[in-house]
Parts: sequence; structure tokens; C-alpha cells
Amino acid sequence: MAKSLELTVIGCGRLGSILANHFSQQGHRVVVIDRDKSAFAHLTEEFSGFALTGDAAEMQILREAKLEKADCALAVTGKDNLNIMVSQLAKTVFGVPIVLTRILEPAREEIYQKLGLTTISTTKVSATAFLQALQQQLEENIS
Amino acid sequence: MAKSLELTVIGCGRLGSILANHFSQQGHRVVVIDRDKSAFAHLTEEFSGFALTGDAAEMQILREAKLEKADCALAVTGKDNLNIMVSQLAKTVFGVPIVLTRILEPAREEIYQKLGLTTISTTKVSATAFLQALQQQLEENIS
Repeated sequence: MAKSLELTVIGCGRLGSILANHFSQQGHRVVVIDRDKSAFAHLTEEFSGFALTGDAAEMQILREAKLEKADCALAVTGKDNLNIMVSQLAKTVFGVPIVLTRILEPAREEIYQKLGLTTISTTKVSATAFLQALQQQLEENIS
Repeated sequence: MAKSLELTVIGCGRLGSILANHFSQQGHRVVVIDRDKSAFAHLTEEFSGFALTGDAAEMQILREAKLEKADCALAVTGKDNLNIMVSQLAKTVFGVPIVLTRILEPAREEIYQKLGLTTISTTKVSATAFLQALQQQLEENIS
């Protein structure tokens, strides 16, 4: 990620705020959206992006966020339905070139991928991390 | 994980149920605890382990789970405080050799590690997955 990007992060919970802080620190231009203003407390003092309070399921908020300018949108709220809705709007209405969609419920992943979305199942990713850690601990306990 | 293990999974939400189903399928003996009986709906029909309804913060439930026999306990509820409490009991009172603790709030991870726990920040793991996916998409868009 050498060049400076326009990144829109939808959801400023634990995951969204880590990403927003990271991107800002890397010199990218970041817009982060959350309907709950208190979520922005997760942002560091160094965060130089734009925090927008509102419901990302509303077109008006996505327009305010200037989503059409984004190089990438990351839908990372804790709600699968919201993530998929925003992701589809980002792709089809706003023409965002890269859209990444968080999926919490692994059973839905196949459907989302059929809709042409690039999904990341944070549940599966977490499960894999646990299996790897267990394997490592078992090997350490044997040796 | 060649030999059959006794595994206790605390929390049968999305993450806990993936792990419990996986371990059961691999031929391990699994006990999964959740205070909400409906959480066990996540378990597959093939799940051959033992599902125990109760509050894992209570010693009585951990005794019923025969935690002292476990080779590994995985505390993967959505509540950091519960995960740390159960993990400490598993290590110190029940002598479980391998204890893996889920951390949602990354800021707490250092404290937990100082307490000697093996923590996995599912938030950090998820953020890393998003950064990797973004990097991959950027490379594909350039090429």
C-alpha cells in the first residue's frame, strides 16, 4: 500500500477502529462511519480522518461520506445484513473498486460470495487462529 | 493432533460452536458449556460431545464439566471478563495443561498475558485478515 488511498470504513467498533487508526497512521485518507457517536472514542488522538455519525444503510450518509471517491470500502459492523447492504451499494451505486465485507455467520458466506462480494468471515479466521495456537501448544508440551 | 484429546470449550456462540464441531469431528472428546441452551443449536447433528447448560463462572458447572480431566480448555465467550476468570480457574484450580483465552478488547491483551494466559485477540486476527485481503485486492487491481 505505497500510494495514499481513500478508504471508507463502515463500523467503528473494535475491528473498524483498529483498521481506521491503522490506515490513518499509514497516511491514507480515511472516512469512518458509525451510527453511535460514542464508537469514535476508539479512535486515537492521532487519527486524522473524518468520523461521520449516521446509519450507513441510508444513502444520504453514504453520499455525505463521498463514497464515490473511495478506492476501498470495508464493511465491518457487527451486523451481517448491514454489511452486505452497504457493500452492494458501494459496489453498484458508488462504483467503489474494492469492497471487503465482514461476515460473522459463516453459514451465510457462500450466498454472499455468489453475490460477487469479497467476504472475510471473522469467525472462521478466529477459529483458525485457535486451532493453530492449540497445535503449537501441543507441540510445545510434547517437546 | 493425532491422539484423542479431552477438550472443554467455554461458550457455544459462532466461534465456540465451530471449534466444538471441528474437535468432535476429529474424534476428540468435547465438553461445551454455555449458559444459553439455545446456543447449542449451532452444534451439528454429528456432534458427539457433551453440551452443558450453565454459567461457566460457577465452580459447580466447571466441576460438572470434569474440567480437571481436560487436556485443553478454550475460553471463547463474547465476554472478556468471563474468559479470563474461567481461564484462571482452569489453570490454577483444575490444572488444565493448555488454556487458550479469547480477548475481544485488544487493549486488555497485555494485562492478560502478564497473568500468564495464552491469549488470542480475535479482533487483531480479524484486522490482520482484512489488511491482507486489501493488499491482495490492490495487487490484483494493479496487475
